[in-house]
Amino acid sequence: MELGMIGLGRMGANMVLRLLRGGHRVVAYDVRAEAVREVEGQGAAGAGSLAELAAQLTPPRAAWVMTPAGEVTERTINAVCGALSPGDVVIDGGNANYKDSMRRAAALKEQGIYFLDAGTSGGVWGLTEGYSLMVGGEKEAFDLVEPIFQTLAPGPDRGYGHVGPAGAGHYAKMVHNGIEYGMMQAYAEGFELMKAKEEFGLDLPHIAEIWRHGSVVRSWLLDLTAEALQNDPDMSSLAPYVEDSGEGRWTVDESVALAVPTPVITLALQMRFRSRQDDSYGAKLLAAMRNQFGGHAVRKAE
Amino acid sequence: MELGMIGLGRMGANMVLRLLRGGHRVVAYDVRAEAVREVEGQGAAGAGSLAELAAQLTPPRAAWVMTPAGEVTERTINAVCGALSPGDVVIDGGNANYKDSMRRAAALKEQGIYFLDAGTSGGVWGLTEGYSLMVGGEKEAFDLVEPIFQTLAPGPDRGYGHVGPAGAGHYAKMVHNGIEYGMMQAYAEGFELMKAKEEFGLDLPHIAEIWRHGSVVRSWLLDLTAEALQNDPDMSSLAPYVEDSGEGRWTVDESVALAVPTPVITLALQMRFRSRQDDSYGAKLLAAMRNQFGGHAVRKAE
Repeated sequence: MELGMIGLGRMGANMVLRLLRGGHRVVAYDVRAEAVREVEGQGAAGAGSLAELAAQLTPPRAAWVMTPAGEVTERTINAVCGALSPGDVVIDGGNANYKDSMRRAAALKEQGIYFLDAGTSGGVWGLTEGYSLMVGGEKEAFDLVEPIFQTLAPGPDRGYGHVGPAGAGHYAKMVHNGIEYGMMQAYAEGFELMKAKEEFGLDLPHIAEIWRHGSVVRSWLLDLTAEALQNDPDMSSLAPYVEDSGEGRWTVDESVALAVPTPVITLALQMRFRSRQDDSYGAKLLAAMRNQFGGHAVRKAE
Repeated sequence: MELGMIGLGRMGANMVLRLLRGGHRVVAYDVRAEAVREVEGQGAAGAGSLAELAAQLTPPRAAWVMTPAGEVTERTINAVCGALSPGDVVIDGGNANYKDSMRRAAALKEQGIYFLDAGTSGGVWGLTEGYSLMVGGEKEAFDLVEPIFQTLAPGPDRGYGHVGPAGAGHYAKMVHNGIEYGMMQAYAEGFELMKAKEEFGLDLPHIAEIWRHGSVVRSWLLDLTAEALQNDPDMSSLAPYVEDSGEGRWTVDESVALAVPTPVITLALQMRFRSRQDDSYGAKLLAAMRNQFGGHAVRKAE
């Protein structure tokens, strides 16, 4: 079928390629003209504006927005809607907060435009392996663009699905990322514990590779971990600084809103916060308290 | 090659079958005579005692002990050694504490018997998919019995390896299980959060199935989770009671001994402890304190 793709970052550009390889016609737009030219070179039709993109699609149109969550997505979806007509479908494949997606779906519905929130997982391997897609919104809109999901997913019969009303897709993706935080932290702790056991001289890349085959902890994240360990067993090329990108926080917010205990996901997020402190006020205060009540030695700032 | 297998529980019996299918000769022993008869029916040679087992093997013998960690394994290894000769190899494939394995390796060495600690992961799927094997001990003993590891592993070139001196195999397996605790808890929290979001009516078996294909959180544990959710989406057949089997505790002990932070693994273990309390003294004390300082309402015991 036909699809407009708006946002040709790493994810969007790879999705265009996967759709082209799957036989779809893709009209692509990005604020960076060179990104448009690049996918044109791969067989996409380029558009110089959202109006041009809309003009090159046959109604009912489907437009996939793949932009950073937050203001950019807000602005983009509003602009896209200005170029579309009743009966068209807007799909947000980014990592928007599910509450924004619920609000957008309601706003677009007033214009007669369908909105689907498609939680998308897969990262840079998605191009070759396919993406996992959790889609929220009206079922009739899902049905209209299902051929797109079938091509983006790892197979036409798996890895995608309609999971509920507007917001449900991004909700599931939010929780997916929260789980990811917990899993990553568990691996990180385990490998650090093995590294610290110096008397055994454990070969961490070797152990990760052993675990990839037949063990209970085998996973795609372990595959990636094994590769990272192979490239740099001591992690000497990296600073111990871990970013977060919002969805872990939203998962924790949601656990508070629903009063559902999520201690491991929450703590995994907190450990990322801690990783970004190289001069922890709290740690200094703890040292000061020990010194106050027990006369314990403290280390002075250098 | 030839192997003696001692302990024909779920794991041991499956390993005998996998070894027989791989063309090895297996002499099997268990205190339960019916377990021995069962593997005899599959092509193993049965032994009525450890002395009989040793007599049916050609030196240098290899004897694999697959018994519950702790006293049973202690008694079994001592008894096996009484039946073996210098140059023979004892392999402990169970979940022994690595410190016990270090002690046993030293004791057996005095008798000229090799000891290998083979951390074994794979559970009931190991029969068909192969086991992940982390082996500690002297390299020359590892080399002697490598054909056994090659058959038990998922492939002759992967999923097994010599990871270090005596104890290192069970150390790696201990950490493996600690990581497993953290991963399982992360999934459990995420699915509980989705279940609690009632307005979306999320179909959890469906979402787990979507995630199995192309998502960042895909894993073997997720495959098992998807199957469990398919069979009983509401988990209505189960009590919310989770056992632990020692290795999570040892991982936490080790993090304390080495002063390496493992908050997520530790908390995953603590959550299992909490799951086994249906009348938490601590929770009651918290409620009592709130009542004391703020006059907050409490729920009386029924």
